[in-house]
Amino acid sequence: MAEGAQSTAEVRAQAVTGGDTRAAARLMRDLEDGLPQAVAVLKRLYRASGKAFVLGITGNPGAGKSTLVDVLIERYRARGLRVGVVAVDPTSPFSGGAILGDRIRMSRHSTDPGVFIRSMATRGHLGGLSRATADVVTVLDAMGFEMILVETVGVGQDEVEIVAQAESTVVVTVPGLGDEIQAIKAGILEIADVLVVNKSDREGADRSVRDLRSMLELRGHEARQVEIVKTVAATGAGVEELMAAIERQRHPAGSDDAALARRRRQRAEALLGEVIQDRMRRAAARLLAAHPDIIDQVAARSVDPYSAADDILAELLAR
Amino acid sequence: MAEGAQSTAEVRAQAVTGGDTRAAARLMRDLEDGLPQAVAVLKRLYRASGKAFVLGITGNPGAGKSTLVDVLIERYRARGLRVGVVAVDPTSPFSGGAILGDRIRMSRHSTDPGVFIRSMATRGHLGGLSRATADVVTVLDAMGFEMILVETVGVGQDEVEIVAQAESTVVVTVPGLGDEIQAIKAGILEIADVLVVNKSDREGADRSVRDLRSMLELRGHEARQVEIVKTVAATGAGVEELMAAIERQRHPAGSDDAALARRRRQRAEALLGEVIQDRMRRAAARLLAAHPDIIDQVAARSVDPYSAADDILAELLAR
Repeated sequence: MAEGAQSTAEVRAQAVTGGDTRAAARLMRDLEDGLPQAVAVLKRLYRASGKAFVLGITGNPGAGKSTLVDVLIERYRARGLRVGVVAVDPTSPFSGGAILGDRIRMSRHSTDPGVFIRSMATRGHLGGLSRATADVVTVLDAMGFEMILVETVGVGQDEVEIVAQAESTVVVTVPGLGDEIQAIKAGILEIADVLVVNKSDREGADRSVRDLRSMLELRGHEARQVEIVKTVAATGAGVEELMAAIERQRHPAGSDDAALARRRRQRAEALLGEVIQDRMRRAAARLLAAHPDIIDQVAARSVDPYSAADDILAELLAR
Repeated sequence: MAEGAQSTAEVRAQAVTGGDTRAAARLMRDLEDGLPQAVAVLKRLYRASGKAFVLGITGNPGAGKSTLVDVLIERYRARGLRVGVVAVDPTSPFSGGAILGDRIRMSRHSTDPGVFIRSMATRGHLGGLSRATADVVTVLDAMGFEMILVETVGVGQDEVEIVAQAESTVVVTVPGLGDEIQAIKAGILEIADVLVVNKSDREGADRSVRDLRSMLELRGHEARQVEIVKTVAATGAGVEELMAAIERQRHPAGSDDAALARRRRQRAEALLGEVIQDRMRRAAARLLAAHPDIIDQVAARSVDPYSAADDILAELLAR
């Protein structure tokens, strides 16, 4: 890399660590777009990061995650912590990035320099959302935000990958959301460190807690202790208990340095895997774009997609 | 490939096209596991496929997709069509493959040789579910199933990728499922060819239809016509109307050969992209496993994940 580009990256990195929120927002946008200059800045920021606590928050649509995040922002701010939020939103390219609720939240906290909220949307089918989310977390971390909340909407493999980057994960559900089997189907129970039954002033909250507990017991083989907390995010009820549970997950009783190092290593592996996959995805997209003829042959079924993939990848590896 | 392996693949392919359901089920399992021998069989089957109509069915958890699929199986069978079903279930590795509902359905149709149901679960974080689903569809197609229903649970980027492989997509929702904005958030509206308001005997069904229509009109720029149908899957009400809507999407008025060829090409491109990405994912996993030291360095933040990825990929490409 040319010396000029290097020093530009250094200047941008210093602006971000120095607290320049406009520079940070621009860097995040550039990272979402996968610009190489932005990656050069991120390489510098990565070494300055690693101090924040990253908390994943996910769960069924309509479970009240956004309201809960809003209350958590307030409470952590009241404790003097700077709070970064990454709201990951699998919105279509058409409907754009931030949705109504996030816009409201953003304006609500916009006068508080101790809060930074970033909404992220998937862009097209080539994904890389998980990698982009990790990048934004690194930027927030390097900016000195001590508590970083990563909120993902809905369920699915992407969500699992995204929250796999968090140090601790809160899964939010509500009473009577169809059959409890939905929670298993969603495959989110396995990633939870804390399970929240939100809107617990509704009928069936205690039943939900019992059902979740039975499911956890069925799972059994899992050594770590998952806590279940009832909240009413709209009134703030139960939120202190939730924060205490999160704190216990953060510093588990009897956990030693080796356990913490193991967790840190898992996160590094997940992050590195994301970056590698993301680069490969881009390479695959470029290869496909360069071979319109092969797509035609697969469409006509004169070539099967596996043989076509062999040919295309052989070309990539031969370079 | 050795001649012996080739002829084995040929024998297995012939067993599948000849209607041997045990051979087909074993092949599907091997494809899910990504066994190279299974891919050799699939290459042969791909050329024999392309005759089936592939219909994607997705939507919010709890919307009644499974019941709707069940009714569709019955109705298509009554019309003399052989029906294959791929139920994609983002279940965790722990809870295993088929869930209760699918097991019930399977036993219900198990005596009918004109129905073949395959449940698929994600396995681990490296994904490839979309590619595996496409493989199973190819097998069902080569087996002579004329109607193939691909049912995905929940929402998310995976779901979008999976239904992108279908020729037509039905998105199922229910009245009063929180705010209608959930549907937008889920980003599934954009992939719908037919929108179903199921459980439409519930209060608010007409309102849901109006809201969905407004959202479609807002979208506006989209040329193709999306139909909205009300059903009550549990009683079968509206299902004939749904099937008629699906048929109209299949053979749109005024559509010419060029439009059909364009759609076929899009599917081929999506499938080829999946196969390439899947192979790259595997390569990335192997590379990561071979470099435990680099993971340690990233965990210690002495190396950033981008520089580490550069090093690992340089090694891959240098081979």
